[in-house]
Amino acid sequence: MKKISKKNTTPEYGFGSNTAGQRLMNADGTANVKRIGEPSFQLINIYHSLITMSWRKFNCMVLCTYVVVNFLFACIYYFIIPDGELGGMIYHNSTQKFLEDFFFSAQTLSTVGYGRLNPVGTSMSIVAAIESILGLMGFALITGLLYGRFSRPNAKLLFSQNALIAPFKEGKALMLRFANARRNSLIELEANIVFSYNETVKDKITRQFQTLRLDVNRITYLTMSWTIVHPINEESPLLNLTEEDLKAVDAEFFINIKAIDDTYAQQVHSRTSYKWNNVVWNAKYITAIGIDEQGVSTIDVGKLNAFQQLSDEVTK
Amino acid sequence: MKKISKKNTTPEYGFGSNTAGQRLMNADGTANVKRIGEPSFQLINIYHSLITMSWRKFNCMVLCTYVVVNFLFACIYYFIIPDGELGGMIYHNSTQKFLEDFFFSAQTLSTVGYGRLNPVGTSMSIVAAIESILGLMGFALITGLLYGRFSRPNAKLLFSQNALIAPFKEGKALMLRFANARRNSLIELEANIVFSYNETVKDKITRQFQTLRLDVNRITYLTMSWTIVHPINEESPLLNLTEEDLKAVDAEFFINIKAIDDTYAQQVHSRTSYKWNNVVWNAKYITAIGIDEQGVSTIDVGKLNAFQQLSDEVTK
Amino acid sequence: MKKISKKNTTPEYGFGSNTAGQRLMNADGTANVKRIGEPSFQLINIYHSLITMSWRKFNCMVLCTYVVVNFLFACIYYFIIPDGELGGMIYHNSTQKFLEDFFFSAQTLSTVGYGRLNPVGTSMSIVAAIESILGLMGFALITGLLYGRFSRPNAKLLFSQNALIAPFKEGKALMLRFANARRNSLIELEANIVFSYNETVKDKITRQFQTLRLDVNRITYLTMSWTIVHPINEESPLLNLTEEDLKAVDAEFFINIKAIDDTYAQQVHSRTSYKWNNVVWNAKYITAIGIDEQGVSTIDVGKLNAFQQLSDEVTK
Amino acid sequence: MKKISKKNTTPEYGFGSNTAGQRLMNADGTANVKRIGEPSFQLINIYHSLITMSWRKFNCMVLCTYVVVNFLFACIYYFIIPDGELGGMIYHNSTQKFLEDFFFSAQTLSTVGYGRLNPVGTSMSIVAAIESILGLMGFALITGLLYGRFSRPNAKLLFSQNALIAPFKEGKALMLRFANARRNSLIELEANIVFSYNETVKDKITRQFQTLRLDVNRITYLTMSWTIVHPINEESPLLNLTEEDLKAVDAEFFINIKAIDDTYAQQVHSRTSYKWNNVVWNAKYITAIGIDEQGVSTIDVGKLNAFQQLSDEVTK
Repeated sequence: MKKISKKNTTPEYGFGSNTAGQRLMNADGTANVKRIGEPSFQLINIYHSLITMSWRKFNCMVLCTYVVVNFLFACIYYFIIPDGELGGMIYHNSTQKFLEDFFFSAQTLSTVGYGRLNPVGTSMSIVAAIESILGLMGFALITGLLYGRFSRPNAKLLFSQNALIAPFKEGKALMLRFANARRNSLIELEANIVFSYNETVKDKITRQFQTLRLDVNRITYLTMSWTIVHPINEESPLLNLTEEDLKAVDAEFFINIKAIDDTYAQQVHSRTSYKWNNVVWNAKYITAIGIDEQGVSTIDVGKLNAFQQLSDEVTK
Repeated sequence: MKKISKKNTTPEYGFGSNTAGQRLMNADGTANVKRIGEPSFQLINIYHSLITMSWRKFNCMVLCTYVVVNFLFACIYYFIIPDGELGGMIYHNSTQKFLEDFFFSAQTLSTVGYGRLNPVGTSMSIVAAIESILGLMGFALITGLLYGRFSRPNAKLLFSQNALIAPFKEGKALMLRFANARRNSLIELEANIVFSYNETVKDKITRQFQTLRLDVNRITYLTMSWTIVHPINEESPLLNLTEEDLKAVDAEFFINIKAIDDTYAQQVHSRTSYKWNNVVWNAKYITAIGIDEQGVSTIDVGKLNAFQQLSDEVTK
Repeated sequence: MKKISKKNTTPEYGFGSNTAGQRLMNADGTANVKRIGEPSFQLINIYHSLITMSWRKFNCMVLCTYVVVNFLFACIYYFIIPDGELGGMIYHNSTQKFLEDFFFSAQTLSTVGYGRLNPVGTSMSIVAAIESILGLMGFALITGLLYGRFSRPNAKLLFSQNALIAPFKEGKALMLRFANARRNSLIELEANIVFSYNETVKDKITRQFQTLRLDVNRITYLTMSWTIVHPINEESPLLNLTEEDLKAVDAEFFINIKAIDDTYAQQVHSRTSYKWNNVVWNAKYITAIGIDEQGVSTIDVGKLNAFQQLSDEVTK
Repeated sequence: MKKISKKNTTPEYGFGSNTAGQRLMNADGTANVKRIGEPSFQLINIYHSLITMSWRKFNCMVLCTYVVVNFLFACIYYFIIPDGELGGMIYHNSTQKFLEDFFFSAQTLSTVGYGRLNPVGTSMSIVAAIESILGLMGFALITGLLYGRFSRPNAKLLFSQNALIAPFKEGKALMLRFANARRNSLIELEANIVFSYNETVKDKITRQFQTLRLDVNRITYLTMSWTIVHPINEESPLLNLTEEDLKAVDAEFFINIKAIDDTYAQQVHSRTSYKWNNVVWNAKYITAIGIDEQGVSTIDVGKLNAFQQLSDEVTK
């Protein structure tokens, strides 16, 4: 295993040094760490899940909750409240009677309250009053959740699936490319790459972290795509390393992008990582930028990962 | 084509260097770039449109959605649900019957639920229960959208339509003027001008970017208007350039303003650009500031672009 | 008029130099400037007013709008819609009939929809459906406005009414004091004082601005009150100036406080200004901090402006 | 009492210097200060309480308000409004009559409006219309409050209960440990420790504050836990101090953590303090990080304060 030179002192990355042997960050930028020993029920974590879960799951959950709560109240009305306290019922058998209870519950929870079905006794009225306030609060919660889901800082960057070792000026460079996956404007972007690898210190494998110097590390305005370039020169710890070396040290590259979402003036952060096997040697990106028939610049976000393999000589 | 001297190293602006020959930024600060190859349906982009579209369009869309959804449910009630499951109907012909279905739908969706029309059968009750929860969620969404539309960082700056080459101290300067289009306070303003032009490098026209040094580049509090001044002296790449030179290099000036909206404590960003043909040579702005009869300072935002042409000798 | 020495170069404050002769900033931190020439109707300015107006005015406006809208719809129902399209009416004269229309409108707008009064004809049903969606949107708007009013960055600082020229170390200093008017925590506070005065340049009175150096200009955590101190020493433009000098140059001191509201993690800004006649010479603040019977530190916000006049010799 | 050397100039912390003799900051990061002399009723403080109170208390308060408001309106309907203006009542005695009034109120406030009970007279209709708009506004308020409660920057850090004086490199260090109590990601963390102690200046005990230098004071990403380390070397004011010395000067350590909550892109701040009696001498933390059977890194938040006492010789 080749010794990798220390070129840049690196701030602690937040992963400990004894985390050798696994992927530390998932491709979507979340940490590959499991939390144990925490209390199983925490309201704020439930809220966090409701904000970050998929729309399919969220809508499903809202609908299920609506059905379940109605079912529970229907049971109360059917089994506990004395007969005759729900006025206006029309039924011929007990199933229909339960359904009337169920639909009365639905009409109360949603505060529609048509009124054919209406509470006449005291206990029925009390439970219905409780259900209606519960409905209002639940609905207030959904209002907040919907707003929270949409107003989250929603920078989503589309990163190329592969990083490349490509020719750059007289030498070569580590390159990766990304574009804005949304239509909002991103401004004041900053990029940062951290190179992480194993090193044997006193017979113990520890994890090392070095920041890689970039050719350009900030741009004012992301209009098209941005290709981040780390030139592999004397200042780079990657100098003279081969594909096999990166594999041997279990290399992983962490990418951090910081930007401002112009629509909501929020600072947004995006992360991803490339393991050594996501790096393609001796290739270069094919441009995703063109000009359409009206002479307007275009960016084809579908071609973001398009690259072409070069003849072998460059990497030698 | 005159060679333009490099006075300031400029951060990448985010437009590539091979974008010669078109206006890069529209006057409202959006990029003149078309996105292709992206999935046609993305929820977050729809939300983004709903937040940024005009009020007229937004209100129209809400009303149309209301009518369309009611129509769809009315069709379900009319064609699918068995007759007699909607109690309380009053009609003499099938059109009136459909209208009763339609208005029942409206009363359910808006959760008014007068109750003359009310579901009596099971299938009717189920669909009505679904419609009411849909109505609640739609309304929750509208609540969020209305709040989102209003609470967006709403700095809107009124830029003068023309930039001027005006006399300044012993020489001349590039000037442009803006005022706050809103009544909220803007504080801690920072301005920045980037000069973009064509340059022929190795027979290929590439786009160059240079930051222009400003006389004053930050103010604490925007009370009236602010005239941004770039003195054309030895440190300026504009020195000795004429109107024809700017045209020849297809000059474009990008203006970036950063400020804090004091009402909501949000950082806001505003951008515009001036092409070479928006620059008026040898003119000066007429003041928009006055004092009214009570002795209070006034700013006339309607006069923001008012300028007067000077006799020709100054530019010589 | 004494010549005031230039000690600190000062960033443009945002008030022009030809604004001599009036108070530039009101005590509540708003600019004393009138805007003219702008379009009379701007949605965003209306929203801004609704967010910043007093609670009394806001509640009054909501109630009035409710009454007026109901009245307008009542007129439609009474004068335009054919008789008999509103079912369930109970009345003996036309006033009572109008009132039934009015209350039906109220029940529709608020989506209560009891149902005794209910639309039976087509035109009535259409208008009622429109009114109910209007009610929902109005209510959505109120939800957003209420949240917007409460969630505004709400740092409110209580400034002492007077600034003092007080003894400090071997010399004297300009002092002013403030405390948090709210119970939320303020952290990472920064203070800044700008001294503004008239100066006669080439027979024309212009307004000058200088930043005053502070003894301590930032604190980590505002627990009690903070006394801001500008020592009047060789580095101060106030050195050797008397009360009459300040009056002669029409002195005004602008105070800017920047902080982070810990509850909502928002950056907040607070401003005020002291004219020369708000400055008390040769006095010192009486402490507002004490210890109660349980030994807990206390701050008495009511005593914030308490100061005592000193014998005259200090200022000599 | 040993003289403590001044190693770092420290920014004012915001606690005055004459606050000797009590704990200044509570363990949850709030200041141990009582406010007096402020107006007893302030809307914004009520809102602040409603946002920060516990969920149990909040829900209880909502329910109580609902009951109380209904009770008040029931009283109006029962005692003030003439008999017969509330249509559809079913009762046999005055208690039942009052209950019908109460439930009509509940049905109006929640805008359910079944309609069996409905206002027929003018005065009843007016009060009901007022109650329904009140209900809508109250509900709008609850929507905002629920959203406000959930969307508050919710970094909650779990600090170890004890700080340790532990062996570090060749010497020893003050150490404390924390982890994220939430599942959201925290990025760009900065830590800062301020050491506060009594010092006798001219026979008066004053409170001194010094910032302690940290081994690492910022990390990019908090995945597991972070152990903050202040090495006790020549640059540390703690050098040569013993447990008794810290007690004698009534030492307190303030910890400030600044981070960015990645889910909402908000900057969050967390504070705590350790008094001299929360510091355990000559101990070291037991690791809370492990690897589960699938080879995934785990963090056991329950073990955060786990430490082991070392043999005595290290501290000598």
